[in-house]
Amino acid sequence: MSLRVKPEEMKAVFLEKLKAHGATDEAVAEECAEIMVENSVNGVYSHGVNRFPRMISYMDKGYIHPEQRPTLVQSFGAFEKWDGNLGMGNTNARICMDRAIELAKANGIGCVALKNTNHWMRGGQYGLQAADAGCIGICWSNTQPNMPAWGGVDCRIGNNPFILCVPKEGGHLMMDGAMSQFSYGKLETTRLAGKKLPVIGGYDTNGNLTDDPGEIEKSQRLIPIGYWKGSGMSILLDMIVTILSDGNSVCEVGKLGGDEYALSQIFIAIDADRTTDRREVLLNAIIEDVKSSIPVSEKSSPRIPNERSNRVREENLEQGIPVDERVWETILAL
Amino acid sequence: MSLRVKPEEMKAVFLEKLKAHGATDEAVAEECAEIMVENSVNGVYSHGVNRFPRMISYMDKGYIHPEQRPTLVQSFGAFEKWDGNLGMGNTNARICMDRAIELAKANGIGCVALKNTNHWMRGGQYGLQAADAGCIGICWSNTQPNMPAWGGVDCRIGNNPFILCVPKEGGHLMMDGAMSQFSYGKLETTRLAGKKLPVIGGYDTNGNLTDDPGEIEKSQRLIPIGYWKGSGMSILLDMIVTILSDGNSVCEVGKLGGDEYALSQIFIAIDADRTTDRREVLLNAIIEDVKSSIPVSEKSSPRIPNERSNRVREENLEQGIPVDERVWETILAL
Repeated sequence: MSLRVKPEEMKAVFLEKLKAHGATDEAVAEECAEIMVENSVNGVYSHGVNRFPRMISYMDKGYIHPEQRPTLVQSFGAFEKWDGNLGMGNTNARICMDRAIELAKANGIGCVALKNTNHWMRGGQYGLQAADAGCIGICWSNTQPNMPAWGGVDCRIGNNPFILCVPKEGGHLMMDGAMSQFSYGKLETTRLAGKKLPVIGGYDTNGNLTDDPGEIEKSQRLIPIGYWKGSGMSILLDMIVTILSDGNSVCEVGKLGGDEYALSQIFIAIDADRTTDRREVLLNAIIEDVKSSIPVSEKSSPRIPNERSNRVREENLEQGIPVDERVWETILAL
Repeated sequence: MSLRVKPEEMKAVFLEKLKAHGATDEAVAEECAEIMVENSVNGVYSHGVNRFPRMISYMDKGYIHPEQRPTLVQSFGAFEKWDGNLGMGNTNARICMDRAIELAKANGIGCVALKNTNHWMRGGQYGLQAADAGCIGICWSNTQPNMPAWGGVDCRIGNNPFILCVPKEGGHLMMDGAMSQFSYGKLETTRLAGKKLPVIGGYDTNGNLTDDPGEIEKSQRLIPIGYWKGSGMSILLDMIVTILSDGNSVCEVGKLGGDEYALSQIFIAIDADRTTDRREVLLNAIIEDVKSSIPVSEKSSPRIPNERSNRVREENLEQGIPVDERVWETILAL
């Protein structure tokens, strides 16, 4: 059963719970609640309302230190290295993308490498933040080991979500994708719905490729996007974020005891307001060309990344955010 | 039949042919020949010796203007916009990555967006160039439309190769991958060898997924890495390169008559020499962790991106570059 919760009501509840569990800094609690509601409004429930209980539990366990704010470690002009001080992951990320945007407005491009931070929830949020400022947003995070490298059986690499975002009137365009073909969240919801995955998603416990989500949950053998290609990209993204932030790599995060904290992230902004005066024309030409493809079927025609999210947003703002009743009860009882 | 050609002999032949076909600028001819030999030494024959005849034909057709050099259009500190003036693609790319490196050494990060350029051959070459200077190298190019968007049947998006490179003693680490699961070159060589692809690579003419390279060549329906994910990433990479360079998008390149020229590219360098004093330790820990995975089989254990290339390089430097006899005859007759 699902109910609809108005964004302002959800935010009030989040604020109350955050404060009750140690987010004593008013600004941190306010921003954190705002981002969690925004992710939910945008339809990314897995990294919004559905993830809220786990965020609170990480505060209770002492992984997240909501009283801490990120601090500057090193500055080289358009590049800065920050320490997240294990503060709230989403507010840390917002601060660092804000800083990357400031650097981009001053230098054309800006980059912030962040260590000792926590799960940023929906990475796309920070891409959209850059785009709101007229910037290209490029960012990624490492994760705990949650996927085998191509050729291996046990989880050694991260799904390291990677975000590319382009500013556009009427709704920014964005690719926000993990290096695994599917997330564990998607496997679970597909299994609970009694369905198969739309394409092969990993291996079963006998080592055969399968589209059965439950079998992949058992084997923990997710496949990377493009097999060896996504595996290689995951490893490189981890290497870059690790040596630029001087922070934890995926394998170091894996040594922390099974929970996912003390991560490393990269935020790049490039000022797109000064590079061309025909941005809308150029982007519309690309969009129209892709949409004029011959469709595979009536049900399946090419999509422009993030278009669906823009539609979902309007619906959720109007009707309220759809929330599973049990999830909402859990949150109210926190 | 394959023979081995010493790098210095190959370079002398390339130089002679380039000059005979209009590369009158000594420095351009020298650099171009050097890069084509380098790509071949590194085992990327498809974008080295095997591609040389097509490069010469593009010079003959007037797509490549080897007498032209790239020129600065706009500068915002750490970001610069350049015009390739339809010069040689690989020398243009080298100049622009050099400039991105200079900007990174001055500002921590540097970015060059390049329009009106030509095929850069092996994109990874410019990642390695950044890494040689102690920088992270990130670069990508758009292409002609050569792949359907996810949900579409006809070719509307590019395979837009994307490169991530990390500097490391003893051999840099790199991911250099197109957004298609396989290149047309790979389809052809696999078909000629009478083999199947190692995984599903696209659709046959009946719309069914297949690992038969010949069937995919007929349908021209390559699949993107990770299906919708690689499709989205391809579109975003094209949008970013187009609005930052103010140059041609994939669809505009597609209107040029079927050949691939007047492309747009991005070069990003981030100075990794100043961000940590334990780079080798951090990278070795990641490499050792991935390599200590439980292997899928004795034949297949996890690989570190670019390791094979480093081994091939040593072999080719010692024994000469393996070249198909007919390819070498074609080149000698140019």
